[in-house]
Amino acid sequence: MAIITKRESTGFLIKQRAFLKLYLITSIENGRSYGLQLLDDLQKGFEIFGFRPQASEIYRALYELEDEEGILEKKKIPMEGTKRKQIVVYQIKDKEAAKSYKKLVKADLDRCSGLLKKALEDNYG
Amino acid sequence: MAIITKRESTGFLIKQRAFLKLYLITSIENGRSYGLQLLDDLQKGFEIFGFRPQASEIYRALYELEDEEGILEKKKIPMEGTKRKQIVVYQIKDKEAAKSYKKLVKADLDRCSGLLKKALEDNYG
Repeated sequence: MAIITKRESTGFLIKQRAFLKLYLITSIENGRSYGLQLLDDLQKGFEIFGFRPQASEIYRALYELEDEEGILEKKKIPMEGTKRKQIVVYQIKDKEAAKSYKKLVKADLDRCSGLLKKALEDNYG
Repeated sequence: MAIITKRESTGFLIKQRAFLKLYLITSIENGRSYGLQLLDDLQKGFEIFGFRPQASEIYRALYELEDEEGILEKKKIPMEGTKRKQIVVYQIKDKEAAKSYKKLVKADLDRCSGLLKKALEDNYG
């Protein structure tokens, strides 16, 4: 299993996809589970940094975590107050894989922080 | 003049192109001027971070700084010890534009550092 795929690492900075996957795993670990809730958290969470991920990018990250990496699983549960309507919730399927993924992403975030720090020192020191 | 073009800013992290342009300006300000020297510095400078920019990407950055942004200019000078051979050197053409560009990139580097710091805190805090 290629945890961080080629698409996500060109050697420069961390790719948005890996960044979003990291947040999705942590949010679900922390009890957030509804698709729309996860979407809303991510779309609003970085606004002060001028970054608003597209919904399509977030859904793609969810899809990969579920179908390609087997870290998440999706369940359909009845919507409160209804009998027929269902909503989709996510939960961690493979805790070890989730942990490994987060560990890899941490190494990449540390690497990127170092690269940006170097650029600030080299060019504005 | 769009100093940081759309291609260079999707709202997530700083693009490689802008990062390379910043280093090119600073290197030339500091007296590096030969194309091959600039290329070599950039290709070797980030190896400990697992990042080695492609030559084509560096030449594209030089081209944009010269032809699109008017920050650099290229000169052909005779190669030492020869009469006919010429080599290309770069120099700053517009110091104010160079300063403005660096200022904009600094704001983006600071923004990106903040975003990575937040991700480290939110997910591993």
